[in-house]
Amino acid sequence: MSDGYMWPDNKRMAVCISFDFDGPSPYLWNSRESAQVVLGELEQRRFGPRVGVWRILELLDDLAIQASFFVPGAIADSHPAAVEAILSAGHEIALHGYMHERVEQLTPAELYDVLDRSISALVKVGVSGPLGYRSPSWEMTADAWNALKERDVAYDSSLMGSDVPYTMDGMIEVPVDWALDDAVFYRFTPGTVRPPVTPRHLIEAWHEEIGASKRYGALVVLTMHPWMSGRAGRAVALRALLERCAADPEIWLATAGAIAAHHRSNYGTDSSFRLRPGRIRAECVQEI
Amino acid sequence: MSDGYMWPDNKRMAVCISFDFDGPSPYLWNSRESAQVVLGELEQRRFGPRVGVWRILELLDDLAIQASFFVPGAIADSHPAAVEAILSAGHEIALHGYMHERVEQLTPAELYDVLDRSISALVKVGVSGPLGYRSPSWEMTADAWNALKERDVAYDSSLMGSDVPYTMDGMIEVPVDWALDDAVFYRFTPGTVRPPVTPRHLIEAWHEEIGASKRYGALVVLTMHPWMSGRAGRAVALRALLERCAADPEIWLATAGAIAAHHRSNYGTDSSFRLRPGRIRAECVQEI
Amino acid sequence: MSDGYMWPDNKRMAVCISFDFDGPSPYLWNSRESAQVVLGELEQRRFGPRVGVWRILELLDDLAIQASFFVPGAIADSHPAAVEAILSAGHEIALHGYMHERVEQLTPAELYDVLDRSISALVKVGVSGPLGYRSPSWEMTADAWNALKERDVAYDSSLMGSDVPYTMDGMIEVPVDWALDDAVFYRFTPGTVRPPVTPRHLIEAWHEEIGASKRYGALVVLTMHPWMSGRAGRAVALRALLERCAADPEIWLATAGAIAAHHRSNYGTDSSFRLRPGRIRAECVQEI
Amino acid sequence: MSDGYMWPDNKRMAVCISFDFDGPSPYLWNSRESAQVVLGELEQRRFGPRVGVWRILELLDDLAIQASFFVPGAIADSHPAAVEAILSAGHEIALHGYMHERVEQLTPAELYDVLDRSISALVKVGVSGPLGYRSPSWEMTADAWNALKERDVAYDSSLMGSDVPYTMDGMIEVPVDWALDDAVFYRFTPGTVRPPVTPRHLIEAWHEEIGASKRYGALVVLTMHPWMSGRAGRAVALRALLERCAADPEIWLATAGAIAAHHRSNYGTDSSFRLRPGRIRAECVQEI
Repeated sequence: MSDGYMWPDNKRMAVCISFDFDGPSPYLWNSRESAQVVLGELEQRRFGPRVGVWRILELLDDLAIQASFFVPGAIADSHPAAVEAILSAGHEIALHGYMHERVEQLTPAELYDVLDRSISALVKVGVSGPLGYRSPSWEMTADAWNALKERDVAYDSSLMGSDVPYTMDGMIEVPVDWALDDAVFYRFTPGTVRPPVTPRHLIEAWHEEIGASKRYGALVVLTMHPWMSGRAGRAVALRALLERCAADPEIWLATAGAIAAHHRSNYGTDSSFRLRPGRIRAECVQEI
Repeated sequence: MSDGYMWPDNKRMAVCISFDFDGPSPYLWNSRESAQVVLGELEQRRFGPRVGVWRILELLDDLAIQASFFVPGAIADSHPAAVEAILSAGHEIALHGYMHERVEQLTPAELYDVLDRSISALVKVGVSGPLGYRSPSWEMTADAWNALKERDVAYDSSLMGSDVPYTMDGMIEVPVDWALDDAVFYRFTPGTVRPPVTPRHLIEAWHEEIGASKRYGALVVLTMHPWMSGRAGRAVALRALLERCAADPEIWLATAGAIAAHHRSNYGTDSSFRLRPGRIRAECVQEI
Repeated sequence: MSDGYMWPDNKRMAVCISFDFDGPSPYLWNSRESAQVVLGELEQRRFGPRVGVWRILELLDDLAIQASFFVPGAIADSHPAAVEAILSAGHEIALHGYMHERVEQLTPAELYDVLDRSISALVKVGVSGPLGYRSPSWEMTADAWNALKERDVAYDSSLMGSDVPYTMDGMIEVPVDWALDDAVFYRFTPGTVRPPVTPRHLIEAWHEEIGASKRYGALVVLTMHPWMSGRAGRAVALRALLERCAADPEIWLATAGAIAAHHRSNYGTDSSFRLRPGRIRAECVQEI
Repeated sequence: MSDGYMWPDNKRMAVCISFDFDGPSPYLWNSRESAQVVLGELEQRRFGPRVGVWRILELLDDLAIQASFFVPGAIADSHPAAVEAILSAGHEIALHGYMHERVEQLTPAELYDVLDRSISALVKVGVSGPLGYRSPSWEMTADAWNALKERDVAYDSSLMGSDVPYTMDGMIEVPVDWALDDAVFYRFTPGTVRPPVTPRHLIEAWHEEIGASKRYGALVVLTMHPWMSGRAGRAVALRALLERCAADPEIWLATAGAIAAHHRSNYGTDSSFRLRPGRIRAECVQEI
């Protein structure tokens, strides 16, 4: 029936609730060489740290769910109160660039510089221990992967090569999926050519995906953004979904950090777990 | 339960019905340097002043709803009968550029010139008092914001930084949302790559958004265009939505001007209202 | 209740079933300067004259509906059997360019040349009388409008300035609407970025649009393409819609030519019919 | 009622379940001149050979369905275990380029080289007999068509000129349809601008298409990709659809190879079967 991955406490599957708390940082990075910063887009994204994140924290608190927040260093520096509220509520805080820099556009030296500054920003607000990482825009290169290993990052959560945790070249991946990212369905920014889907549409789709994932014992990592999923209709719909997840005894609801730790304890980073028909080898870029 | 914004008469939330009565003006502005103006697109947009606006006025009259119409000066000059009908029915008329000029493409001198000409055009058809403003295409720059303040504009309604009224650098914002703009869902012009959604789809989505917004005590500003929402199937669907809004005792149905005035009276322009966890400061462009 | 347009026999509204029987001609025109014609796209479009048009003729025959077919001259020249079958079944055949040329890309001399060649091609297969016209891709310029008048075209059916017939500068318009064009919803060709909608989705949308149009006494012109709407699932869904139209005593089901003739008889071409609040004047391109 | 194509055993229609098992090969081909290969897209596509194909093989085995797998040579070379598992389960394996090369971008010499290398790769893993072919991205040119004939390819399955098998210039076509390709609905890769549809949406659309195709006695060729349709929610939804197909006595469920063989036996390659109103002639590129 399932693909055979083993979860704690005989749970049938795992769900990770994660937020990329990026606010205006992707826009500022993408327009870093523009002469003009447009207020409309800035304000749309500021909804996240101003309003959205507080609604999400309230919702998680009501349902006693621990989530993972991937926070660019610049957001930690400019919104310390929000980040401290996340931390004090017991959620995981992990790396997401300093200004949401896309790794495929950075030189190796820049990769290390960005990583070091983003680690410092999180440490400054009180985050401790080995940090997890999610790459901005889910881009990844071999150079970036090596930089993460050099800095002893605990895990990555940006790739889609499986739907259970896996190891690639010695580092654990907690895999994501475009179909589980709210931005794919909700984002409407200048230049976007299709309307956002309704909250009902997305939440029903995710509920069906979670149900189907039980059959394969898979991991569902939901990725959301406070400036999008914190809007009123979306926050109300998200609450309904999370209530169902929290009440489901077959689901292990866990942070990305806890899922990576489970994988490390049970399968190691030598990839002793074998995905059929064989283990995932240390991949090189040239390999298909 | 709610974010704590206080509405008049203990209403739980507010809904503003607004129309950007732009007709062909955005097309004429965008093609101002083209050698050729294409009749197909002109005619599609002329549906607004010819047919759509009259259907909308009838609908609003039937339901005794006062709406806000944002009217480019060129429309007031070329369609005075329609604009006077809007005015005599008791609706608010407010600024929307002269030829729907996008503010991020104007020099500071042009910003003032466009603003002055658009004010004159509205005054000429009988609009009085301090005027509200909505920027064409919801673009905004720091220069444009300053020009609005210099001309004593009563409020802006183009940004998305919250879903209750707020003050930014001394001027009131009555915020909008892409998900509440009919153009995002209905517009189909040459180059558009996805089909328009059905009236049923959009109206149900907006009805759900209004319902969810009660939880947070939020403001829902619907933005529509007579050349799109005046089409037969859309006008019939809109009527059904507005009937439900008008019959709901928990909703304060008000013009953008009335909402701005409420905010000014109760919260001032010094931003004494504090969005959790703190008040919205006078923002500068460099701030995240 | 309605906008006041009068239909024959006290019908509440009118529906026109029309087909743009263009097959591969738009692709051949658009790629006329490409070094390479790709067979995949050609074959997809050949489905129209090979298979789709015969299914549509069967369907129309079963329901005793007379439709309007807009046929590029090149299709009449290369598929005379199909065009003769349309004609002998009693449907209207009207102009649609020779090779589906977009009028805004033609010089005045080319406009006349294309028009003359397309008239000749239809006359050659037996079409007679003053011919109606639909512009390829629904584009229109002042030059093209004048060329149509010079050649005594009976009516145009390419613009969207109203949803009842109207006169512009002395020629009758039988107006169309992007939301009533199957290509907007079904077309998937290389470079298209969104999936086709399901037949059920489109047919339900059109059924709702027809129902809503009764309120305003409007005209619904459905535009379809045999290479798209002739596909199995779409043809079956279309049959269900047309059965409902044919059985509805409030609908006047008529060809575009019959609708134009009704307008000419009852309202003339001097635009004596007054769209509220005034008649549609002979428009010039500079007018908003 | 039907268009008159005859299926074996008095079946009313045929359904072919096919998979383009391409994994990362289209991405590697398209980025062959890029300086940088991005890991994110590689990993998303590796889901196919790592996880998706095994789920699909399990599903087909459970339902005793024989499917057609179109496999680029590079996948056969790099994932021999998966390809051998497909073969030993009794499915058809057929050609799909070596590295998913688009034929309209190849010189004639390259067309033959790619074809020869892809044939060798399949022969090496044990595929025998005359091989079928599906062109990468469903592109086709006259040169490519001739190359397939020169190499005695058994059939092509890339074009859309009918919805029953047909012959073009002496070679059999088992036709496809964009509306029956999972990539059109599910693919989300960098640069994609619309969200993937839900599995429920696509599977219901396909179920309706199959039902409607009975009326015309048509062929439904479903095309799927293990890296997309092997995702948990999609695999579960696909199972439900295939269960209904397998249980339907009116459907002939067959591989593309079996369908081509049926056509060859019953209609030959001289196109004795006449699509109304006449047989499909050997087409030339210049013909409409």
